[in-house]
Amino acid sequence: MDVEGLKKAVLRYVDVLASKHIKHSLEALVDIPTVSAWGEHHVMLDGANTVASLLRELGFKTEVASSGGYPTVLAEIGSGGNATILIYNHYDVQPPDPLEQWESDPFKLMERGGKLYGRGVADNKGNIAARIAALETLIPYLEEIGLRVKYVIEGEEEIGSPTLERLVLDRIDWFKAGGGIWETAYIRRDGRLSISLGFKGMVYLEVKIRGASRDVHSGYSPLIPNPAWSIARLLARLKDESGRVLIPNFYNDVDPEFLSFGEELLNQMDVSELEALREELGIKEFIGGLSGLEALKALHLSPSLNISGLYSGYTGKGSKTIVPSEATVKLDIRLVPGQDPKKILEATVKYIEALGFKDAEIYVESMYKAGYTKPGEAIVEASIDAAEQAYGLKPHVTPMAAGSGPIYIFTDIARIPMTGAGVGYYGSRVHAPNENIRVEDFIKGVKHVALTFIEFTCRQKGRCS
Amino acid sequence: MDVEGLKKAVLRYVDVLASKHIKHSLEALVDIPTVSAWGEHHVMLDGANTVASLLRELGFKTEVASSGGYPTVLAEIGSGGNATILIYNHYDVQPPDPLEQWESDPFKLMERGGKLYGRGVADNKGNIAARIAALETLIPYLEEIGLRVKYVIEGEEEIGSPTLERLVLDRIDWFKAGGGIWETAYIRRDGRLSISLGFKGMVYLEVKIRGASRDVHSGYSPLIPNPAWSIARLLARLKDESGRVLIPNFYNDVDPEFLSFGEELLNQMDVSELEALREELGIKEFIGGLSGLEALKALHLSPSLNISGLYSGYTGKGSKTIVPSEATVKLDIRLVPGQDPKKILEATVKYIEALGFKDAEIYVESMYKAGYTKPGEAIVEASIDAAEQAYGLKPHVTPMAAGSGPIYIFTDIARIPMTGAGVGYYGSRVHAPNENIRVEDFIKGVKHVALTFIEFTCRQKGRCS
Repeated sequence: MDVEGLKKAVLRYVDVLASKHIKHSLEALVDIPTVSAWGEHHVMLDGANTVASLLRELGFKTEVASSGGYPTVLAEIGSGGNATILIYNHYDVQPPDPLEQWESDPFKLMERGGKLYGRGVADNKGNIAARIAALETLIPYLEEIGLRVKYVIEGEEEIGSPTLERLVLDRIDWFKAGGGIWETAYIRRDGRLSISLGFKGMVYLEVKIRGASRDVHSGYSPLIPNPAWSIARLLARLKDESGRVLIPNFYNDVDPEFLSFGEELLNQMDVSELEALREELGIKEFIGGLSGLEALKALHLSPSLNISGLYSGYTGKGSKTIVPSEATVKLDIRLVPGQDPKKILEATVKYIEALGFKDAEIYVESMYKAGYTKPGEAIVEASIDAAEQAYGLKPHVTPMAAGSGPIYIFTDIARIPMTGAGVGYYGSRVHAPNENIRVEDFIKGVKHVALTFIEFTCRQKGRCS
Repeated sequence: MDVEGLKKAVLRYVDVLASKHIKHSLEALVDIPTVSAWGEHHVMLDGANTVASLLRELGFKTEVASSGGYPTVLAEIGSGGNATILIYNHYDVQPPDPLEQWESDPFKLMERGGKLYGRGVADNKGNIAARIAALETLIPYLEEIGLRVKYVIEGEEEIGSPTLERLVLDRIDWFKAGGGIWETAYIRRDGRLSISLGFKGMVYLEVKIRGASRDVHSGYSPLIPNPAWSIARLLARLKDESGRVLIPNFYNDVDPEFLSFGEELLNQMDVSELEALREELGIKEFIGGLSGLEALKALHLSPSLNISGLYSGYTGKGSKTIVPSEATVKLDIRLVPGQDPKKILEATVKYIEALGFKDAEIYVESMYKAGYTKPGEAIVEASIDAAEQAYGLKPHVTPMAAGSGPIYIFTDIARIPMTGAGVGYYGSRVHAPNENIRVEDFIKGVKHVALTFIEFTCRQKGRCS
């Protein structure tokens, strides 16, 4: 195996294949409004079928599977033995609202000033398109080098991947691989690729408090219980001003081994990136005045509780005078290794009851635990080396992303060490209006994935030099 | 003046004129979506012109006036000296949302099962139509009995009548009358007309707290201040669970004379109506467990602070994970006599700052004080006697409505004693979906207003018997 020759051969076509798949793959994917939160089955199926068809064009054997939820695409190519790599992505996206803040249609890929705009270009359709481009550079050599690629693309990541675990358990033999590439990674302000080796868990709750059976003229407010006050009082008791979650035992089970491994990695990180974000967002200081290592620890090693949405009564223009009949809050709880989502949910429900909100209705939107891979695994080393070659700078490796993802299904259940790759950058506005990626990052991302495949294969075969 | 003969003559045409004006006047008025909160000038002008044209058909001299806001219709007929009555109504309405809860188009008058449905049928277009019908029964006799009628119909009541005071001050000579009829009154469950002799004042505020310059992926929630938490903490500090407003000096200036006069009237009220409302709304108990006289005092004699609307972040279906960039609450503060809206606003702003929410943006949507008339005035006695004749039951007289209205402009500035009349009932769902009135109440309401005119005129002329 002539590793350097292979890299040269593969990289020769990166530019042209990147361009091809921006048009051919990314445009087709962005076109389909696969917002899993909206619950439109035919749209989601359209998304899955489009992904499957793009992979079939490369020679993949594909299957559109389901374990009760939106379909998951399972695809496979090549016949490597110990060199089997699994790629994970998702074709679903976040809702585009607030729509009025988009400068162009979120579901039409637009190129402006070297950037590509559209819902999902960073999270996660751009990464699918880049990996398809990378695969196309490598397809001619798969048999020769003995690499097998398994590709799983689900449609429920943005709603908490409720059926992925079931699918993996049902097909555990299919889900065998020596290493895996997680859905994402992003480019920092300093140009380095930021790879996360773990992702937080999630408990997403909707809490609803009801009052009168209908909205009432607010002249009656001295007598009629107002659920908006109740929800405000409840929220004020859930977290203090320093950001500490007040749910009893919330922090109890955090895995000390993860913490010590995490702190080690954090010590190698610089915080300039965080400070730049703070300034960009126009924030005087972070919660509790956190900075430096403490800010990094809060972000990467601590569980969190957040209000993603809050609403009650009249939310339109001008004034309306009512006692609202209900109030709703959407809460996302992010978990770190060691924390059990079920225990956290139970503690939360118990605490809400203990505070006196016995009638609060609690709906669980999603629930899964954290997962991570330790450095030193072949796939991690491969992706780090590949990143240095693709980006010209050593990547930045974090023990745990600030965000969540059901990576534990791969790391803990399928026991696949996972690394990251991705085409988004610090300004990608993931989950927000005007989500975008830079064309140059897309090209580098294609390079990075192609090189990761090669670096991983030669490591597995013991033939890197 | 043959009072009894006049009553007979007038009442003969009540039924037919009530029917005529349900079709002719009420239908035309409901048709126009005069939602003042929406700010559509041409729609509001259309509303004012329609009102003016209905009054011109009766022989009124009309003017569409403005003091900078939506137009006010000023109309006049007859040439009485001391027998001058002023009628106040408003042609604007509350927003119809939540639209999906309406069983028919809010802006099309619909009759179903003896009831008329549509936004404004109770508040306040039904009262306009009933008064037009009552006026039409009386027009032939106006010169003979020496009654002059002034009619003022504004278009900004639902947004706090921001320019009415200016108009009255500018035209203070036009606004002279021996008695006035306020926009409303309603039928209780026991069939009695409930007349309020006063209306609370109002300070309507929108408070906005901003965080990051845009929504951020909620992975960053451990660091990025979340304005939804801030607004929840602020609200939790504004009012305690017993319903007591925590703004310093909030209760200080309540007029003791009003309180003692008010308590006297409240002692004659029964609370069965309130208990029936409580059950209808499916509420176990009122705030703080209030009942009986204490509940009546809270409702009629106390200032209040209410959340009419609250929103931040994602309010759509399913889950979205963001740290919202802003949070907004709509607060209505209702004032009783003695309280100065400006002082209350200042105390509120100061308190919010003192709590540490220095960056909260506070927008005043409306601001006016309370006003009331004492029993014993000719117009009050006239309307009470007329109610007994029209409804067959003694009316129920409250010192102060639970609701607000800029009645002080008439009682305090123009110095006109005011009474009430109206076609709504306890089930009218004022400000809520499926607003409705009962046809029989409309007819009785026409009778009541016609008889009030006669009872007032004979009192002013000293010729009632």
